[in-house]
Amino acid sequence: MKKYLLFPMLLFLLLNTLSAQQRVSELPLKIGVMERGELNAITDVEGVNVGHTTLVKGDSVQTGVTAILPHGGNIFQQKVPAAVFVGNGFGKLAGSTQINELGNLETPVILTNTLNVPTAMDAVIKYTLNLPGNENVRSVNAVVGETNDGYLNDIRGQHVKKEDVISAIENAKSGKVTEGNVGAGTGTIAFGYKGGIGTSSRKLPESLGGYTLGVLVQSNFGGVLQIAGVPVGQKLGKYSFKDDLLNNVDGSCMIVVATDAPLNNRNLERLAKRAFLGLAKTGGIASNGSGDYVIAFSTAEGVRIPYKIETATLEQEVVTNDLMSPLFMAAIEATEEAILNSLFMAKTTTGFKNRNIKALPITDVLEHLKKAGVIEEH
Amino acid sequence: MKKYLLFPMLLFLLLNTLSAQQRVSELPLKIGVMERGELNAITDVEGVNVGHTTLVKGDSVQTGVTAILPHGGNIFQQKVPAAVFVGNGFGKLAGSTQINELGNLETPVILTNTLNVPTAMDAVIKYTLNLPGNENVRSVNAVVGETNDGYLNDIRGQHVKKEDVISAIENAKSGKVTEGNVGAGTGTIAFGYKGGIGTSSRKLPESLGGYTLGVLVQSNFGGVLQIAGVPVGQKLGKYSFKDDLLNNVDGSCMIVVATDAPLNNRNLERLAKRAFLGLAKTGGIASNGSGDYVIAFSTAEGVRIPYKIETATLEQEVVTNDLMSPLFMAAIEATEEAILNSLFMAKTTTGFKNRNIKALPITDVLEHLKKAGVIEEH
Amino acid sequence: MKKYLLFPMLLFLLLNTLSAQQRVSELPLKIGVMERGELNAITDVEGVNVGHTTLVKGDSVQTGVTAILPHGGNIFQQKVPAAVFVGNGFGKLAGSTQINELGNLETPVILTNTLNVPTAMDAVIKYTLNLPGNENVRSVNAVVGETNDGYLNDIRGQHVKKEDVISAIENAKSGKVTEGNVGAGTGTIAFGYKGGIGTSSRKLPESLGGYTLGVLVQSNFGGVLQIAGVPVGQKLGKYSFKDDLLNNVDGSCMIVVATDAPLNNRNLERLAKRAFLGLAKTGGIASNGSGDYVIAFSTAEGVRIPYKIETATLEQEVVTNDLMSPLFMAAIEATEEAILNSLFMAKTTTGFKNRNIKALPITDVLEHLKKAGVIEEH
Amino acid sequence: MKKYLLFPMLLFLLLNTLSAQQRVSELPLKIGVMERGELNAITDVEGVNVGHTTLVKGDSVQTGVTAILPHGGNIFQQKVPAAVFVGNGFGKLAGSTQINELGNLETPVILTNTLNVPTAMDAVIKYTLNLPGNENVRSVNAVVGETNDGYLNDIRGQHVKKEDVISAIENAKSGKVTEGNVGAGTGTIAFGYKGGIGTSSRKLPESLGGYTLGVLVQSNFGGVLQIAGVPVGQKLGKYSFKDDLLNNVDGSCMIVVATDAPLNNRNLERLAKRAFLGLAKTGGIASNGSGDYVIAFSTAEGVRIPYKIETATLEQEVVTNDLMSPLFMAAIEATEEAILNSLFMAKTTTGFKNRNIKALPITDVLEHLKKAGVIEEH
Repeated sequence: MKKYLLFPMLLFLLLNTLSAQQRVSELPLKIGVMERGELNAITDVEGVNVGHTTLVKGDSVQTGVTAILPHGGNIFQQKVPAAVFVGNGFGKLAGSTQINELGNLETPVILTNTLNVPTAMDAVIKYTLNLPGNENVRSVNAVVGETNDGYLNDIRGQHVKKEDVISAIENAKSGKVTEGNVGAGTGTIAFGYKGGIGTSSRKLPESLGGYTLGVLVQSNFGGVLQIAGVPVGQKLGKYSFKDDLLNNVDGSCMIVVATDAPLNNRNLERLAKRAFLGLAKTGGIASNGSGDYVIAFSTAEGVRIPYKIETATLEQEVVTNDLMSPLFMAAIEATEEAILNSLFMAKTTTGFKNRNIKALPITDVLEHLKKAGVIEEH
Repeated sequence: MKKYLLFPMLLFLLLNTLSAQQRVSELPLKIGVMERGELNAITDVEGVNVGHTTLVKGDSVQTGVTAILPHGGNIFQQKVPAAVFVGNGFGKLAGSTQINELGNLETPVILTNTLNVPTAMDAVIKYTLNLPGNENVRSVNAVVGETNDGYLNDIRGQHVKKEDVISAIENAKSGKVTEGNVGAGTGTIAFGYKGGIGTSSRKLPESLGGYTLGVLVQSNFGGVLQIAGVPVGQKLGKYSFKDDLLNNVDGSCMIVVATDAPLNNRNLERLAKRAFLGLAKTGGIASNGSGDYVIAFSTAEGVRIPYKIETATLEQEVVTNDLMSPLFMAAIEATEEAILNSLFMAKTTTGFKNRNIKALPITDVLEHLKKAGVIEEH
Repeated sequence: MKKYLLFPMLLFLLLNTLSAQQRVSELPLKIGVMERGELNAITDVEGVNVGHTTLVKGDSVQTGVTAILPHGGNIFQQKVPAAVFVGNGFGKLAGSTQINELGNLETPVILTNTLNVPTAMDAVIKYTLNLPGNENVRSVNAVVGETNDGYLNDIRGQHVKKEDVISAIENAKSGKVTEGNVGAGTGTIAFGYKGGIGTSSRKLPESLGGYTLGVLVQSNFGGVLQIAGVPVGQKLGKYSFKDDLLNNVDGSCMIVVATDAPLNNRNLERLAKRAFLGLAKTGGIASNGSGDYVIAFSTAEGVRIPYKIETATLEQEVVTNDLMSPLFMAAIEATEEAILNSLFMAKTTTGFKNRNIKALPITDVLEHLKKAGVIEEH
Repeated sequence: MKKYLLFPMLLFLLLNTLSAQQRVSELPLKIGVMERGELNAITDVEGVNVGHTTLVKGDSVQTGVTAILPHGGNIFQQKVPAAVFVGNGFGKLAGSTQINELGNLETPVILTNTLNVPTAMDAVIKYTLNLPGNENVRSVNAVVGETNDGYLNDIRGQHVKKEDVISAIENAKSGKVTEGNVGAGTGTIAFGYKGGIGTSSRKLPESLGGYTLGVLVQSNFGGVLQIAGVPVGQKLGKYSFKDDLLNNVDGSCMIVVATDAPLNNRNLERLAKRAFLGLAKTGGIASNGSGDYVIAFSTAEGVRIPYKIETATLEQEVVTNDLMSPLFMAAIEATEEAILNSLFMAKTTTGFKNRNIKALPITDVLEHLKKAGVIEEH
C-alpha cells in the first residue's frame, strides 16, 4: 500500500469508530470549565432515579415516557423544594402553578408527548393515591412535561397508556441513564436531527460547597446547532431560517435540574432560569412554537417538607445567595452537555408516514470540531 | 286572630317564600353600583355558552363538569384573547402557561373536581382533534380548572368520565345558567355551607363603552362570609379560625370572566386580577390550601386570532388602558355576586360517607340582611 | 325640656364628640374577627420604627415623607426577608426587583410623593453609605414608594428635600403612630375625601402561632367606600363612575406589612398579596391609574440575613405553608382597618390652587354605620 | 530578508493593525447567521437616538451616562410599547413595574452607575416636565438602568450630576454610536477585561418581515468569555471560578432592544427574554450579584400610544406570534455581538485608587479566533 494512502485510511477508521453513538464525554471534548460528576448523569445526584418506557410499534408509534424521581421514598409524604421556570410557555407542562406557590414537588416528574399529558397525569395520580400511607390523600399535583413528537410519531393516536407511565416510574433506578431514542425522547427532533433524552452533571469543588448538580433533557427544538461553541449547524447547512422559511424551528425542550445542594424555592427558580441559558449555548432560540420549561428541585434531606407537619415552623439550612453563582454555572454547563448528549446518542429513525430523521452525522461533526480545535486529533 | 300576631306571621310566610333557593337578584338586594346584564349571567356576553354534567349516584358520587365556551364556533380555529391570574396556586389548573405566553385560549374552559383534571383534559383534546377542520392538529392546550369536592364526593373514585366532559361541552348553550348543586359545583362547599356554581354579569353604560362582562364561579372556599358587606358568617357563628382551628378554611375558587370588550392579553390579565378582589368582598381569604385562579377572555370578534394566519401582522382594535377602570369594577361586582349566587342557589346535600352540608340558611341570612338595612322589608 | 327632645340632643352631642378625628378602634366598631395588637399599629411588631416629615408651606405645599424601619439596627448589615406584590403597577416603587430576586430588604422603606422618589432614594443611599460599618458599601437598594398628591400639593415643585427624608428616618420610633394628614399622607385623597397615613395590627392567638402583624398605608385611591361592609360611599353619593365619568377613581395605595412571624420571601409574597384583598374590602378597585403595591417583611431575628456571611449555608426556622392562613386573614383585616384609619384621622385640607378636600364627614358616616347596625348606639 | 521570516512579520503587522480597538464587524468575523443592519447599531432602527456623557476626572472619576431615545419627539406624549425582562434582579432598574403594567415607555432610557440612579431619574423627570406640551403632567415614569462601576470609579462620590443626564438626552442623535469607554460604560468591567458600551443590529429578510432590530448594552459582568463560540476566556486563563474563588464573577448587564417591528408589550417581553440568551452566548452566567435586565421597545408609529386618547379604543396592527421567531433570533445575535463590541472597543483604564483594568488583548484573542477557524487568515 502506498504510504500516502495510509493516513486517510486510518482517519477513516478512527472516524468510523467515533461515529457510533457516543456520549460527549467519551470524546476528547470538554463542555465548560467545571468537573463532571462520576456518571455524568442526573443520577449523580444521590437519590435521583430515572426510568423509561419506550414505545416503538410498526411504522407509526415512536414515543414513550421518562420518569425522574427526586428520591426513592414516598415523595408525597416527603416533598422536595422545587421551582419551575417558563422559558417559553407554548407547552402543556402540568403542575407548575402549585410548585411555585408552595415551593415544592410531591410526585415524580414525568416527560412524554404533548397529547398524552393527561394520561401521564392520571397515572401519576393513581400511583400516588395507591402508595402505602396515602390512603386519605385527596389532592395530588401531578407534574408532567412534554414535547411534540408528532412528526415521527402518530401523536393523535395517543399511544401512551397509563401502565406505560406506571412502568417508567416503577422501573426508575439510579446509575447509568439510557440516552437518545428512549422514553420521552423516542420520537423527538432537535436542530433538524434526531433528538431525544440526554443527561449530564457537574460536581462543584469542595471550596464552593462540593455539591452535585445533574440535568436531564428531552430535546425537540431548533435554532443553529452549536457544539462546544462551534457552529456545526451552519457548517452542515442545516439551520433555522436558512432559506427564509419558518420551518424546523419549532419544538420544545423540557429540562429537569436536580441538585443535592439545600436550596429553597426562590434559589431553585433562579437556578432553573440558568438552565435556559445552557439551551442558548447549544444554539437554541426558544422560538415562538417552543415549550421550554425547566423544573429544578433539591434532594437535600434537610430541606424536605413532610406532608403532615406537627410543628408551626420548620428548620432548614439553605445555601446563601452568594454561593449560588457556581451552581448557576454548573446548571448552564450541564444543560448544554445534556442537550448535546441527546443528539450524540440518538439514532436515525423512520417513523410515522415513513418519515425519516437522520442522526447527527457524527463523522462530519467530528471533522468540524477538529478543525475548530475543540477536539484534539490523536 | 289577634292583630299583634299578624305581622310576625306574615313575616314568617314571607321569609319562607324567600328561603327557597333564589338568586340574589330576585331579592331586593343590590351588589355594587353597576347595572346587571339581562340574565345576570356569563351568557349575557354574546356567544358564551355554558353546559353542565351533574353526577349524583347513591351516597358517594357528588361531582360533575361545567363547560364554558367563548363562542359557538371552532375555538381552536378562532382563538380568543385570554389571560390567567393565579390568586393562590394550590390547584391544578391546566393550560395556564400557554394562555399567558401566547395570549389566547383555544379550547372550551372546563371545570371539574381535582382528581379528574386529566380526564377532562383528555376529553377536551379528543373533542378538539375531532372537530371538522382540525384533522391535522397535533397540539391542543386543554384548559381545565378544578376545586376539591372530596368531602361530599368520593373523589378518589375519579367518577367523571370523558363522555361526561364531552356531554357538558356539547350541551353548552346560551341563555339562563343553572346554578348551585350542578356540574362542577355539585359537591363543593363554601364558608361552611353548600357552595356550587354561580354566575352574574354587569353592563357598562354607553358612556363607558357599553360593554358586557360576565362571571361564572365554582365556589369551594372559606373565610368569613360577607353578603353585601354584612358579616353574615360571623352572625351565624360559622367562620374560619372561629375556634382557633385550622378547619373549614381551605378549598378553592375557580373564576371565569368573559367580556365582549375587545381586550388584549395584558388587560385581560389585569381584569382577571380584579375578580380576585371580588372574592375578597365575599369574605374569602385565599387561604394556603386554596387554588384560586381566574381565567378571563374576550369574545369580541375583532380580536380573535385565526389558527392559520396568512399575513405577518394582525390588525386589532383594543380598549385603551384608561377605559379599563369601569371594566375592573364590573369584574369585582360580578364576581362578588356570582359567588353569592352559588351559595344562595345551592341545596343541602348528603354525600360521601353520609356527610351532610347544609345550604345557606336563607331565612336567617335575610333576617341579618334586613337588620343591616341592605334588604328593605316589604 | 320635653323628654322626647332629650334623646336627639344626646345623640347630637355624642355624634359631635365622635366626629372629631378618631381611630376606628376608638369607636365601637370591629373590623374583622381577629384581635388587634396593643397599639393597633405597625409598631406593635417589635422593632418596627416609624417616622414622618410633614411639609405644609403656604397654600401650595402639602406633602411629606414617611419612613418605616424593620428594626433599629443597621438594616444593610442585618437584612430582613421581604417581598413585593404589585397590585397595579401604575406607580414608581423603587427597589422591587432586587427585593424579589434576593428575597430581602436592606434599607428603610420610604413613602413620599410621585415626583420626589429620586430625592428619597438618594437620601436613603446617602443614609446607608454613611452608617458606621458601611464604609465599603458600593451598592444600596433604596426602597421608595409613592402616591400622587398633585391635586392638593404643588407636586411639580418637588418640595421634598433629602434632609426631609433623613429626618423621617432618624426620627423614626416605636410606639404610637401619627395618622391622617402626616408624612407621605399629607396631601393624599381617598374615595373623594382626605386620605393619608393609617395603621392597624392584629395579634394571632397562641394556638395559631401568637404572631403579630402590622400594616401601614398611604391611601390615595378611589372606588366605592365601604366601612365595615357598609357602602358608605354610595350612601354619601360620592363614588367612582357615579356620573359615568372617569373621575376621582385614580390614585394609588402603598401598603407596608410587617410581621414578627419568621417568614421567607415566598410566603411574604403570598402575604403581601392578601393585603391587596384588604384594599378591596374598603371598596378599592385598583383602577387603571392606581399604583398599588405591597411590601411585606419579617422582623424575626432568626431569619435575618447578615451582609457578610462566613458560611455557605444559613439555618432558618420558618413558618410552614399550612400556618400561613391565619396570617393571611390578619393581613386582610389590618389592611382594611389601616385604610379606614387613614380616612378617619385625616382633616379637611385646602392646598395647591386653593383646592379643598373635605375630611370624611364622620357624623354622617356614623349615622350610616349605626343604621346598619355595625356600631351600637349607646 | 529571508523568505521564511516574511510571513511571521506580515502576521505581526496584521495583528498590530487588528489589535487597535475595532468593532467585531471590522474583522472577518461573523456572529450568527443573520444580516447586520447598515451601521450595525441600535440606531439602525429608525428614530432611535443615542447620547453619551462621559465623566473622567483625575484618577477617581470614571463614569457617565448613556441615553437611548425611542424617537425624536415628545416621548411622554407619544409613548411606545415596551417591556422589561428581569434576567437577574440584583440591580436598581427604575420604572420596570409601570412598563410591564401599562405596556409602554414614556421617557428616554437612561443608563448610568448604581449610586446615581436617583440623579438620573430626577433629571428625566425634570426633562419631561419641561417639555412643551407637558405643562400639566404630574407623573413621570423615569426609566433608569445601571451597572456598578465602583472598582474603577469612585462610585460613593456619586459624580454624575443632573446636567450630565440632560446633556446625554439632548445630545442624543442617530447615526454611528460611540462604543467602549464612553457614557455609562466608562468604568465598567466584563470578563475581567475593560467592558463598556456596545451595540449591534440585525435586519430580517423581507420574507420574514424586513424588520430591523438593534441592541445596545452596558457590559459589566463575568463568566467564561466566549467569542463566536471560542472559549477565549479559558484560553487566556481568565474566567470565573478558575481558582475556586468567588471573584470577578459579579457585575451586571443592561440590555436595550429596539425594533421597528410593530409589537405589543407581550411579544416585547418575549423578545427581551431572548436578549438574555444572547448574553449566555458570550459566556455570561447571570451570577448572583448581577443585575441583568432587558428593556425592549417598538418604534413602529402604528403602535404608539398617545398620552391623551380621545377614543375608547385604539387600532393597532401587530406582528403575530408566529412571526416572532426570526425576531427572537435577531435579538440573540445582536445582543451577543453588542456585548463583544463593548469589549473590543474598550480601552485599558486606570481609575480609582490607581486600579488598572486591561483592554481585551486583541492580538492574543485574534490568534485564538484564527486557530479556531472563525477568523480567516489573509
